[in-house]
Amino acid sequence: MTVSANAFTPNGIVTLLTDFGDSDGYAGSIKGVILSQCPGLQILDISHNIPPFNILSAAYILDTYCRDYPAGAVHLAVVDPGVGSKRRAVAVHYGEHFFIAPDNGVLSMAVGQGGLYRAWEIHTVRPPRDQVSATFHGRDIFAPAAAHIACGGSPDDLGPEAGSIFVLDESVPTVSPRRISGQVIHVDRFGNLITNIRGILIKDRHPGTLLVKVGNYTVVGMSRTYADRESGELVVYTGSSGLVEIAIVQGNAASSVKTPVGRNVEIVFREKT
Amino acid sequence: MTVSANAFTPNGIVTLLTDFGDSDGYAGSIKGVILSQCPGLQILDISHNIPPFNILSAAYILDTYCRDYPAGAVHLAVVDPGVGSKRRAVAVHYGEHFFIAPDNGVLSMAVGQGGLYRAWEIHTVRPPRDQVSATFHGRDIFAPAAAHIACGGSPDDLGPEAGSIFVLDESVPTVSPRRISGQVIHVDRFGNLITNIRGILIKDRHPGTLLVKVGNYTVVGMSRTYADRESGELVVYTGSSGLVEIAIVQGNAASSVKTPVGRNVEIVFREKT
Amino acid sequence: MTVSANAFTPNGIVTLLTDFGDSDGYAGSIKGVILSQCPGLQILDISHNIPPFNILSAAYILDTYCRDYPAGAVHLAVVDPGVGSKRRAVAVHYGEHFFIAPDNGVLSMAVGQGGLYRAWEIHTVRPPRDQVSATFHGRDIFAPAAAHIACGGSPDDLGPEAGSIFVLDESVPTVSPRRISGQVIHVDRFGNLITNIRGILIKDRHPGTLLVKVGNYTVVGMSRTYADRESGELVVYTGSSGLVEIAIVQGNAASSVKTPVGRNVEIVFREKT
Repeated sequence: MTVSANAFTPNGIVTLLTDFGDSDGYAGSIKGVILSQCPGLQILDISHNIPPFNILSAAYILDTYCRDYPAGAVHLAVVDPGVGSKRRAVAVHYGEHFFIAPDNGVLSMAVGQGGLYRAWEIHTVRPPRDQVSATFHGRDIFAPAAAHIACGGSPDDLGPEAGSIFVLDESVPTVSPRRISGQVIHVDRFGNLITNIRGILIKDRHPGTLLVKVGNYTVVGMSRTYADRESGELVVYTGSSGLVEIAIVQGNAASSVKTPVGRNVEIVFREKT
Repeated sequence: MTVSANAFTPNGIVTLLTDFGDSDGYAGSIKGVILSQCPGLQILDISHNIPPFNILSAAYILDTYCRDYPAGAVHLAVVDPGVGSKRRAVAVHYGEHFFIAPDNGVLSMAVGQGGLYRAWEIHTVRPPRDQVSATFHGRDIFAPAAAHIACGGSPDDLGPEAGSIFVLDESVPTVSPRRISGQVIHVDRFGNLITNIRGILIKDRHPGTLLVKVGNYTVVGMSRTYADRESGELVVYTGSSGLVEIAIVQGNAASSVKTPVGRNVEIVFREKT
Repeated sequence: MTVSANAFTPNGIVTLLTDFGDSDGYAGSIKGVILSQCPGLQILDISHNIPPFNILSAAYILDTYCRDYPAGAVHLAVVDPGVGSKRRAVAVHYGEHFFIAPDNGVLSMAVGQGGLYRAWEIHTVRPPRDQVSATFHGRDIFAPAAAHIACGGSPDDLGPEAGSIFVLDESVPTVSPRRISGQVIHVDRFGNLITNIRGILIKDRHPGTLLVKVGNYTVVGMSRTYADRESGELVVYTGSSGLVEIAIVQGNAASSVKTPVGRNVEIVFREKT
């Protein structure tokens, strides 16, 4: 982490990830503020249904889609249990994208994986109403900051450089020569368990030399996809996001592994037999 | 209420608020009709998950976001238990925005708060299919009317002026010198209880001179934000929408106050001590 | 089915219908890939909450909205229980629209109702990442194909012509002179039961000469809308999508008819009395 060499040229795209739900007007307010401060932007909803205050889930999801967007996109991620407290708001330039978020770990997985980033604190924005509210920084701070960057404004206008951003411990596994010790960080729509273990960590291992342990289950070997095992069996594979996932073929792994999020996942490398 | 002095110049933005849910094609049809009748518009989803037929909740939510949009936006709000009955469909010019909705109270809070508005009945639109259906006026009447206004059409093309629009009694509290008697009108994603009492009504009172009563609870004084009280305590504050809200710090007020929506909320002003 | 006479001129609109849910980043990835491969497109969310793997429900919903969009729209529908298996991916030109989907029946109701279509297999696309994943063809195959067509690319670039597409048996009723035997294919947000019986099949019959049987209920005659019957009564009518629907006036039919989806619906024509 330090200076990123590339300048940022916005492409007019802003994506939104929040825990504001889809039954209130909160996300609608954010969109309105962005369009008021920078007309003509293209706003894409990712999800507003992150479980309330679940920073780790948001960190994972942000990582799954952000790089699918063209260079120059601004990614707004507001999951903010600390609204009104002292946590920082940051704007981060990483790779070809800008990220606007509270500095609470929501950027743990999308930013800084093997590359340099540059971060600014957000202090100075144009609030949409008379004053910044104490309870809705998504509308009053993060949306104006996103509009500023997406409209081509300099991040230096927002505040001073921020140094390192906060990274959640839970976002990275512990790696040793014979063992990777991670955890389940998200359950997706289909009941698949997503771990914090990047598939690239086991890429060069022979799939048959692995044991994967989660809850009371032990799975021998990795698969390429669901179809490699029989219906009802646990299957472990590197998912579309690049992380190791655990599924049940034509079933729901989250129903079989109790309280899956946070549960330990061990990958043990055996001698090649 | 009467003539609004300003002409309306549409900015190409249409927002959508409905109770059509997010698991059917109804909202998708509305977007298609709007784009068919006025190509190039920018359509923003606010929510399609208003509880079915809950006009009061929709009225509150519409009020939270509509003014965050730039001047010239068209706000479509379709929560319409009376579809197929005699309730009027209206187009309303208020402030810098146009509102398209059934005249059933859904505009109670967004329109006419301290200002003049001008309303038209919607009679003449271009239905997207052979005829207007009996059950889906969102697609067949409201969407074409929104497209007409957003495309720069005159509201006079839609029908005659409508006079006053219908306002829900529940949208306004009863105010007397020593007491404001309102109610909970919405529970948000985080379990916060939103009342129909605008914070501006108590702005000049010393916060410590208030008692707020809801259900079996009495709270002394108003706070600025959640963080002003201890975890687990009830806190009363003016929320980001300008309305008085009741929350539990790091908790869910809706779980503690039974059947919260419709429940009476009293604010009593005490002698300054 | 064979050659459609009209050339296809894309209008820049892409609609999305999936079962990816609204709590993950999957739909967000699809949008990102589309915009990366064809900047400037207008993407409209229809629903991402199709019940997981429910092809029939998706087939119905796609049919409700697709023709409300202007000529030149591309409709992407990804409900794909067979991802990673041998099912084909297809691009289909029907009427004034293009459809991109797995060839598993999801196009059963939107395509080919009384007209010719032309279909191509999708083999050659530009995957957004290094390689096509085994588990997320929505991002890696369908999104690039949709971007290709929406950007004006030739369907011949995607692959060879596909012949007939797969049609679900459940999407069409059995019609005989005195009886139509169909089924409930979807329950909508309001608990209304949607059948696979097109209203046009009974258009010329006198409404009073019909008996409609579903579960333990028999309804005499068709109505024009809910308001034609008393509160709490079952009402049968041709819904806004053109299909016969069963509702309870001011109630929820899905609560009264147990396990409604898949349940047989019989329309019996009586002698005119």
